[in-house]
Amino acid sequence: MSTQSLDSLQQLSVNIRKWILNCTHRAGSGHPTSSLSAVELMVALMFDGNFRYELLDPKHCNNDRLIFSKGHASPLFYSLWCAAGVLDEDDLMTYRKFDGILEGHPTSRFPYTEAATGSLGQGLSVGVGMAMNAKYLDELPYRTFVLIGDSEMAEGSQWEAIEIASHYKLNNLVGILDVNRLGQRGPTMLGYDLKTYEKRLEAFGWNTIVVPEGHNLRQISDAYREAATYEDAPTMIIAKTIKGKGVPFLENEKGWHGKALDDEQLQEAISQLPRVNDDLRGEVRKPQAASFPILDNGASGEFNYQPGEKEATRTAYGNAITRLGDKHSQMVVLDGEVSNSTRAEYFRNKYPERYFEMFIAEQNMVGTALGMALRGKIPFVSTFAAFFTRAFDQIRMARYSDPNIKFVGSHAGVEIGEDGPSQMGLEDLAMFRSIMGCTVLYPSDAVSTERLVEEMALMNGMAYLRTTRGKLPTLYNSDDTFCIGGSHVLRQSDRDTITLIGAGITLHECLKAHEALKEKGIVSRVVDLYSINPLDMVTLRKAALDTHRLVVVEDHFAAGGIGEAVAAALADQMTPIQSLCVRIRPRSGETEELLDLEGISAKKIEEAVLRTELAASPS
Amino acid sequence: MSTQSLDSLQQLSVNIRKWILNCTHRAGSGHPTSSLSAVELMVALMFDGNFRYELLDPKHCNNDRLIFSKGHASPLFYSLWCAAGVLDEDDLMTYRKFDGILEGHPTSRFPYTEAATGSLGQGLSVGVGMAMNAKYLDELPYRTFVLIGDSEMAEGSQWEAIEIASHYKLNNLVGILDVNRLGQRGPTMLGYDLKTYEKRLEAFGWNTIVVPEGHNLRQISDAYREAATYEDAPTMIIAKTIKGKGVPFLENEKGWHGKALDDEQLQEAISQLPRVNDDLRGEVRKPQAASFPILDNGASGEFNYQPGEKEATRTAYGNAITRLGDKHSQMVVLDGEVSNSTRAEYFRNKYPERYFEMFIAEQNMVGTALGMALRGKIPFVSTFAAFFTRAFDQIRMARYSDPNIKFVGSHAGVEIGEDGPSQMGLEDLAMFRSIMGCTVLYPSDAVSTERLVEEMALMNGMAYLRTTRGKLPTLYNSDDTFCIGGSHVLRQSDRDTITLIGAGITLHECLKAHEALKEKGIVSRVVDLYSINPLDMVTLRKAALDTHRLVVVEDHFAAGGIGEAVAAALADQMTPIQSLCVRIRPRSGETEELLDLEGISAKKIEEAVLRTELAASPS
Repeated sequence: MSTQSLDSLQQLSVNIRKWILNCTHRAGSGHPTSSLSAVELMVALMFDGNFRYELLDPKHCNNDRLIFSKGHASPLFYSLWCAAGVLDEDDLMTYRKFDGILEGHPTSRFPYTEAATGSLGQGLSVGVGMAMNAKYLDELPYRTFVLIGDSEMAEGSQWEAIEIASHYKLNNLVGILDVNRLGQRGPTMLGYDLKTYEKRLEAFGWNTIVVPEGHNLRQISDAYREAATYEDAPTMIIAKTIKGKGVPFLENEKGWHGKALDDEQLQEAISQLPRVNDDLRGEVRKPQAASFPILDNGASGEFNYQPGEKEATRTAYGNAITRLGDKHSQMVVLDGEVSNSTRAEYFRNKYPERYFEMFIAEQNMVGTALGMALRGKIPFVSTFAAFFTRAFDQIRMARYSDPNIKFVGSHAGVEIGEDGPSQMGLEDLAMFRSIMGCTVLYPSDAVSTERLVEEMALMNGMAYLRTTRGKLPTLYNSDDTFCIGGSHVLRQSDRDTITLIGAGITLHECLKAHEALKEKGIVSRVVDLYSINPLDMVTLRKAALDTHRLVVVEDHFAAGGIGEAVAAALADQMTPIQSLCVRIRPRSGETEELLDLEGISAKKIEEAVLRTELAASPS
Repeated sequence: MSTQSLDSLQQLSVNIRKWILNCTHRAGSGHPTSSLSAVELMVALMFDGNFRYELLDPKHCNNDRLIFSKGHASPLFYSLWCAAGVLDEDDLMTYRKFDGILEGHPTSRFPYTEAATGSLGQGLSVGVGMAMNAKYLDELPYRTFVLIGDSEMAEGSQWEAIEIASHYKLNNLVGILDVNRLGQRGPTMLGYDLKTYEKRLEAFGWNTIVVPEGHNLRQISDAYREAATYEDAPTMIIAKTIKGKGVPFLENEKGWHGKALDDEQLQEAISQLPRVNDDLRGEVRKPQAASFPILDNGASGEFNYQPGEKEATRTAYGNAITRLGDKHSQMVVLDGEVSNSTRAEYFRNKYPERYFEMFIAEQNMVGTALGMALRGKIPFVSTFAAFFTRAFDQIRMARYSDPNIKFVGSHAGVEIGEDGPSQMGLEDLAMFRSIMGCTVLYPSDAVSTERLVEEMALMNGMAYLRTTRGKLPTLYNSDDTFCIGGSHVLRQSDRDTITLIGAGITLHECLKAHEALKEKGIVSRVVDLYSINPLDMVTLRKAALDTHRLVVVEDHFAAGGIGEAVAAALADQMTPIQSLCVRIRPRSGETEELLDLEGISAKKIEEAVLRTELAASPS
């Protein structure tokens, strides 16, 4: 299987070391020592026939996948692609520069990056998603390799990924654990205790191969070949390496993490490397020709909710994905052991082969979904809105991989009542709004939920949908239309003196308040702001202009919520905006009691409007 | 050691079962079956001499600690305290009611709750903090017990806690794993495979005791006694139990999770329980008398930064905690393996006994700090601002335990430059602002950092401080004062036509823009908004009134950031507010290039102001 002689692989390793030192020196920053420890691990993978890749086509469906979970080893990552011939040495010298695409940690701006990394402990989850895709969805023979640092094994997310990978018997997944013993500020918890890593991984159901000499190309290559034959579980190659390997004054020394060499140090380091053929490049084995069936897209059925009929938006979500599954054959659904609550189980019942139970491990669930998205799937990921906070870092990082991925959080707000604050999603809008470019939707009835899920499936990018636990009356007809960035004005006249803006549960409270206020002679406009990001600026500006006063009502904390979004969007307008939201510590109780407590029930909206009227009227 | 006969413990277990069924029936919701599986596990702990507690004093420094990580078993939790005699049956019937304190999942509103739980996989970390406190800080003999559900073992945070607990050899920590095989929507990954739980825990360095009959009081009590003698590691008691135990039609059945019984079902269930003495209560062993030394608080030293001298605020943070360590003897510092970057290492160097290395496991770090806070310490917890997103759920949940805990995030914003977006804290203000009542501070120089850290140490509650990577010139004198909710007006005159509001790095850009604008005849006010929550409303309102235009500049995304906070706070004012913040996908580059890219450099602030001036001036 080997394509190049041991000698030429060794020479290539020297060249890569040189590039690592040079490009970080030129950048004045970066992580040379963390890169040097894994040179042979990666050379033996890529250039000794263990890795199959169409260099001209990084999106080839049957390329093997390589993820640097230790994203700070980016100098090595880019140098590998230089060794493969798709970058040249000049390109490498743009490392970390504003005008280049070789960022400090790999992002999707460099086309050979499978997934952006840099926040540790995330790459393996992404690899799990890619491996699950190959095994269960596309049924392709490509394999997925993840380079893991030993420090990041302390992250719980690793063990989530490790457990799920063995649960799903991902024999097409190989982790490469670069045990160089040193973290950023000192030794790792386990140091060179390879035995304990092995024991832990075996206890979690992995095949393990210990490589005692992690700079011995032959030992490493043998490990890859052995891993390829293992059929029952994923394999972790546990390699003892030396941080800073190849440069004597850096080797196994503390205090060199994340430091580039200065001129003098560089000269000394380079002088200590053997002389080799500078022009040597590596050969990468081609992938098998492969295709996967593009299924004929079926039609999406229709739904039938009668106006006034009560249904929970979470239930409408379950109905919608189940209805759309035929039309969107790339749609997959992942849920964190609450599918009976989020209603993701409806999809599972109809399409069990495209549903994945991810158990109570939200970080890995998001990472896995990202891996699937990057392999062309449309993942819908659900759990309670509150529990997406568990995966905020993974969601944040996903952004830098430009994925097509959809999140659906149920049980939003104090509306859930008796279960109490631990289960209430009250920060989810703030969190998803902070993800640059992420669409944020919040429907208030079954029809709008169905339509907005359709929109989510059709759009390309990140999106979040917030659903409500309890049943709410249907407001819309099935031919009403909804779009990302839209809104609906449900009550209006040319005598409106105030606009009530709601979404989800609070829209219904606004509608009730509208009626009560009308009886007191106050005519209000009511807007269903179902698209939180982007906002319907035309409707908001018109409301500001027409009614001169806005009241935003939401079942969410103030910070980063709908009120702040609207206030900021209209900050150039001369319109007072009042925000009614969750400001008192929430607790267990009935929905109505809690909406009252927080001042977001119809009664409290009415009172707030009357108070302001009173204050505004001449005394 | 036993205080009650086996027979009376069995009778007590029956009473507890009755209470569990009754209180959830009365509430119409809750988790009876998840409670029933752990009845004997808890009765054998609390009432067979294995648990020491002063019932009249839940804050007693030497009480054993009991944390329900499976917080949804709250009916059992409250019933235990009923069995101990501190609640009566009528109290139990207020379970989940708005006017009661027995919430759906335990919170600090019930005084016997050690830590609020309900989001799974968090209790063990809190227990780690309490056990570390006993072993390394207060040096008290109390022990910490954590009841864990088998479903939540899928959470990575568990394995973070498990690894750290063995790293710190917490022989005073006992986990009780209630293996009832069933999660919310179906079987767990491991079902009744106790052997695998055992293997995994042993591989992670724990002592394990398997209890094959988890409803056998004798077997369980023996396990507790054995655990008490183990000196080298924490112990996990792995017990095979039956979900719904005691009620034949609930036992080991799917579909009963989180469901209360209706009238008829309740009657049937109660009729299937043996008849016992209803009035029986349990006896709890008293704790050893104990005290821990209240150290004389030393003085805090002074600092010395010359105006104009450059220093990074992260460095000033490191200096401040080190300076304050004598004065605040309860101060402890935890860091996630980046103490050389956050400067937490300065504290470690002076007070190694009060510094805890928590490695790259942010979720557990926050949980552990919470445990210490709840035992009277003042934890300062640091990592990169970006990586606190990893622990959002833990931070969110901490709120419901009312802790005194301080977070410090370094490397805020695009300012960090070359490392790229994965390392940039750009959502941290949104995240911490969404924590109800959490103070949020963002100093711009060494002096203000030192003073704000003093304020953080003095206040009681949650607080977040954001620090910057690069060096910034000192703006303040050492006798300038800073307070939570304050601000400083650094430039003002009675001719100001615009106010520039900055914090951290952008304050310096605002000051430069102020000079450039002055040369163009535009006089601006400059406000250092170092307190992001609460805001200095007096200064902001005055600026709005005086200058009629505000520009908020921040190195953070728009959502939930300073601009939105100010816009929302002044939404009742007629003042246009312009927000300059991070709106373009960030990347690697030099600080100045990135500040320019995002429109938050002095030059871009100036341009933005001039553009608006132009638009506002008569054509």
